[in-house]
Amino acid sequence: MRLVVIGGVAAGLSAAARARRLDRNLEIVVLEKGPLISYGACGLPYYIEGQVRDLAELVRFTPERFRRERNIEVRTGAEVAAIHHSRREVALAGGERVHYDKLVIATGARADRSSLPEPEAPHVFTLETPDDARRLMEYLGARRPRQAAVVGAGYIGLEIATALRAHGIAVAVFEREADVLGRSDAHLTRTVAALCDEFHIELRLGAEIGNFPADLVVMAAGRRPNTELAAEAGVETGRTGAIRANERMETNLAGVWAAGDCAETTHLVTGRPVWLPLGTTANKTGRVAGANAAGARARFPGVAGTSIVRVCGLGLAFTGLAAAEARREGFDPVAARIEALDRPHYFWGRKTTVELIADRRTRRLLGGTVIGQRGLEGRINVVATALTNRMRVEDFAQLDLAYTPPYAQVWDPLLIAAQQLEKLLD
Amino acid sequence: MRLVVIGGVAAGLSAAARARRLDRNLEIVVLEKGPLISYGACGLPYYIEGQVRDLAELVRFTPERFRRERNIEVRTGAEVAAIHHSRREVALAGGERVHYDKLVIATGARADRSSLPEPEAPHVFTLETPDDARRLMEYLGARRPRQAAVVGAGYIGLEIATALRAHGIAVAVFEREADVLGRSDAHLTRTVAALCDEFHIELRLGAEIGNFPADLVVMAAGRRPNTELAAEAGVETGRTGAIRANERMETNLAGVWAAGDCAETTHLVTGRPVWLPLGTTANKTGRVAGANAAGARARFPGVAGTSIVRVCGLGLAFTGLAAAEARREGFDPVAARIEALDRPHYFWGRKTTVELIADRRTRRLLGGTVIGQRGLEGRINVVATALTNRMRVEDFAQLDLAYTPPYAQVWDPLLIAAQQLEKLLD
Repeated sequence: MRLVVIGGVAAGLSAAARARRLDRNLEIVVLEKGPLISYGACGLPYYIEGQVRDLAELVRFTPERFRRERNIEVRTGAEVAAIHHSRREVALAGGERVHYDKLVIATGARADRSSLPEPEAPHVFTLETPDDARRLMEYLGARRPRQAAVVGAGYIGLEIATALRAHGIAVAVFEREADVLGRSDAHLTRTVAALCDEFHIELRLGAEIGNFPADLVVMAAGRRPNTELAAEAGVETGRTGAIRANERMETNLAGVWAAGDCAETTHLVTGRPVWLPLGTTANKTGRVAGANAAGARARFPGVAGTSIVRVCGLGLAFTGLAAAEARREGFDPVAARIEALDRPHYFWGRKTTVELIADRRTRRLLGGTVIGQRGLEGRINVVATALTNRMRVEDFAQLDLAYTPPYAQVWDPLLIAAQQLEKLLD
Repeated sequence: MRLVVIGGVAAGLSAAARARRLDRNLEIVVLEKGPLISYGACGLPYYIEGQVRDLAELVRFTPERFRRERNIEVRTGAEVAAIHHSRREVALAGGERVHYDKLVIATGARADRSSLPEPEAPHVFTLETPDDARRLMEYLGARRPRQAAVVGAGYIGLEIATALRAHGIAVAVFEREADVLGRSDAHLTRTVAALCDEFHIELRLGAEIGNFPADLVVMAAGRRPNTELAAEAGVETGRTGAIRANERMETNLAGVWAAGDCAETTHLVTGRPVWLPLGTTANKTGRVAGANAAGARARFPGVAGTSIVRVCGLGLAFTGLAAAEARREGFDPVAARIEALDRPHYFWGRKTTVELIADRRTRRLLGGTVIGQRGLEGRINVVATALTNRMRVEDFAQLDLAYTPPYAQVWDPLLIAAQQLEKLLD
């Protein structure tokens, strides 16, 4: 019995490792088209920024280690050209055919440069693999660009902009939408715009790159799931454009699972399919796909939509729906935003901004935003946990959160925001 | 219509402020026996340690400010000698009688020194009010004690021990129980014992102070709710010894509410009455009592049992039940403890210890512990939120927690602990 996994980064390797843990006898083959596996793509902007010295630090496992420690065959440079599901075979680019009994598709996503005026010019980059990062760093050292254009003000675009500013390069960020971070949130956008202004990053919203004169372009927009292989084999995609999978990460084809950035998941607040490609979800869905491919009955309930980014030293985190999104989904959102100290003033408390959103009729929490310099990951995680449990504002406001002066306030900013929201709902 | 509140610290003032917000016309009188109101008692050990320069920083409101801004009469030095509920009157120590229509009892708790060999000796202190702290600081300056004994290894005792060590004083901590922090948790106790050892604090477990030669004794054990006034008026106490109140913070007497350290609450994991006197709960129950006294229908569902303390620079947090407590409550607890980095290694990740406990049969989470130097407040709050929602381990393991290298790991230590726990349950 052989499991083949297409893709050797977060989702693919999680699937393979999990399958091995549950079934010692399964033959497991991972096919990765690139030269490396198991790299932390989220660390790449920090390599550019200079926070990570060596790209090797971002690589957790080698194929050798996977073979030695887990008896999993990992082949790099193994690009799959086609899936022939009726024969249970994948065809590699070189012509080789690999039989499978079970298949996990973890082909990821890619930034699409094709919308750029000169997509293949030597000064145009994406930042998706360690190779991309090495090439960009070499370019920075050799050409010393003076004016960069970053396309896309999502979290990758803003991280790259921050990183390039740290090299003393003038940076302009072009975002087609009116808001940043893929969220219809005017306050979040204003906060990021003010930060960019302070750090001399030119943020152009509702704008295309056009003929902007730049000697470095980084494409960080238009990310799309890699579904072509799957689609040609008859795997269905959903309304988001990513592969449709149920909560067991099963596709419409028997014996074929999908996981990671190529697959859609369910949004826990709306109950609807969503495509939010993130490393956390890739690891989780990979793990579930791998478990089920090994005969277990694991399930992935969905995502709350949690995201966090650091831009120019400030942390911005959100989860669930923004008010405008909630309205589009048929809710009647009410939002409360407060600013409060995260610790007592006598313990160097710093200002933290919390916004909570609830549905007027059901009083159920729909989303939240936390902005600050520390502790924001913990706060947004509390909101995500509340959303997962469909908590109402009044129950959230009574949460037994930790307090001691060195770490927290007696009324955590989360609770103050909830009280404010209760007032607006009454 | 007059609301009288007995007690002017966390619970009492929260009640008064909340009642005023909901009813502009209510006459509100707060009777506080001490000279100050609205002080942050949790900050007192940090004043002793030298982190807080001036006790005034711990006082948030003055009686004048309450009168001016909220039209609430706050009387300090107003000790209530008796409650005559049939006449709806409280009698002050000086003989004056104050009529009430509604009464909130927020009389707090006190450390009982009577078990000490010399309870009234001049070198024996408690640390409950700013006055206590001032006297202790004066004593430290004037007498320069060399050997201190702290009675009790709860959070206050350990904070005081840390503070006294910062003055270069030899410190021995005596704890009658076998474990610290009021929790039957051997690992937590070992961690604190190792810390004490490292910082030259002598921790004597299962020990009484006896004839230990000390020129400074701080009593931080045997805290008891101040229920005498209430009990004499016919207010029932519960099995914990604190005032029994329902989820509206109503006592058995009509028109009488209880809040804060004098009252018991419900433990959200066991569903049973519990007495866990903490500032957070005092504020919340005060707010609920005040709202209901003003005619609203607020409720306080209970506490998860969340606690956090910093001892010698290390943070220790827990919530819910320890395994031994869970067993006593009739659960079949299974515990998993892991150590993991809180951020990627290339982003200066630090080790964090997470323990999660679940019931074997129902797989419901029962409690958790987080030990580390940062981020522990956020992690324990996620566990507390999960306990409040009676989450099962497998759902907890799929929580959509935030990830970005500067703030978090792709698999948060919480999720790794949950996966480990799932393995043990399977």
